[in-house]
Amino acid sequence: MPQFRVVLVEPLYEINIGFACRVMKNFGFKELCLVRPRTSITESSMIFAAKARDVLESAIIVDSLEDAVKDFDLKIGTTGKLAGPRNVLRSVVPPWHLHDLMKCEGKVALIFGREDIGLTNQELSMCDVLVNIPTSEEYPVMNVTHAMAVILYELSKAHIRPKVKLANAKLREVALKYFSDILELVEYPKEKEPKAKLAFKRILGKAFISQKEIQILLAFLHKVHLRLSSDVTKKS
Amino acid sequence: MPQFRVVLVEPLYEINIGFACRVMKNFGFKELCLVRPRTSITESSMIFAAKARDVLESAIIVDSLEDAVKDFDLKIGTTGKLAGPRNVLRSVVPPWHLHDLMKCEGKVALIFGREDIGLTNQELSMCDVLVNIPTSEEYPVMNVTHAMAVILYELSKAHIRPKVKLANAKLREVALKYFSDILELVEYPKEKEPKAKLAFKRILGKAFISQKEIQILLAFLHKVHLRLSSDVTKKS
Repeated sequence: MPQFRVVLVEPLYEINIGFACRVMKNFGFKELCLVRPRTSITESSMIFAAKARDVLESAIIVDSLEDAVKDFDLKIGTTGKLAGPRNVLRSVVPPWHLHDLMKCEGKVALIFGREDIGLTNQELSMCDVLVNIPTSEEYPVMNVTHAMAVILYELSKAHIRPKVKLANAKLREVALKYFSDILELVEYPKEKEPKAKLAFKRILGKAFISQKEIQILLAFLHKVHLRLSSDVTKKS
Repeated sequence: MPQFRVVLVEPLYEINIGFACRVMKNFGFKELCLVRPRTSITESSMIFAAKARDVLESAIIVDSLEDAVKDFDLKIGTTGKLAGPRNVLRSVVPPWHLHDLMKCEGKVALIFGREDIGLTNQELSMCDVLVNIPTSEEYPVMNVTHAMAVILYELSKAHIRPKVKLANAKLREVALKYFSDILELVEYPKEKEPKAKLAFKRILGKAFISQKEIQILLAFLHKVHLRLSSDVTKKS
């Protein structure tokens, strides 16, 4: 995984500096660099940083974008503006293009522009690659920290370890067997059985049903099965 | 595509109400419902809504979550808290699980909780499915509007039409042919040629090089080729 630095160029609002720190820490990013901030870091910034005060307190302030990205291997710019297909300066990739980056080593700068005018053409030309978040054409201009949330989220996605244990094949089979037995016990039309069984299997599949959830479902199916079979025994 | 309603339960801060509107409009969502807001809609809300004042002005205010989601087919809750694998109430899906939803028809409510305590257990139990954004374990609590940005972004992703025309196979071949010819002209070691050509091809591939970009590259390769061949002619 690369070493990341988030660069905010000439931020205008103290709130956004705070929110940027919070969003960064939410997704495990720690290094913030502010280029010529047009506001001070105030108590407001601290409040909006919430539990990411440490990110704010260790933020670096520099005088130029050149200084911010000195010695960085890859400079990733962000832009809300799209140009026609002929404009190479604004040739962009979507945020999910960055997934493979997480497999790389090196120093990577993620550069976010000003709240009012974004990054200048000169700054864009310094970047190796530009990321654009696909938005509604009606209102494409995002607040900088919300754009940051989307991009850091996409980056961190590549590193997510699953936290849920999927129901295993054996328990799925048991559930399906119960379901099938119950279909017979309730005298479900024979010719419609295969479709019903497939639908049941698909519902469990689409839900990514977990080990815990299928255990609950099995307990339920077991009860239903028990009751229905005893009814059948009584009747016969 | 379903009809979406974004529901904010008891929002506390006027700024967040504004930001929510902006984020919604950024991703093409228009219908906002506020449940018992604990703040008024102020001039600040309007400022933070920016060009999404229309979303704010048409927001519905109701007295209960029941009223907010009445007649909705699917109720999607959001939660920042994860429980152990045994807690079914907090059994969650990641945001990208929602992609397939965009192929469905129906009325879908996206429910976001309070800034301070999220959704209550009683509210979570009303939801058909819960979404959780995978975050850093060190600081998992996101601001509600940043969480909204991530979730609406993931939803809208499923509807994105490509805006960039990929370089076609013919032009790729032409570029590769130029590259190969140039390797010969510069007397690149014969045994290393195949690897160099493959690397060149892969670089264009990984870059998702566009039709416009490859044309520029071809113009460049053409010039290089021309100059090198005339040098060779002069020499011979």
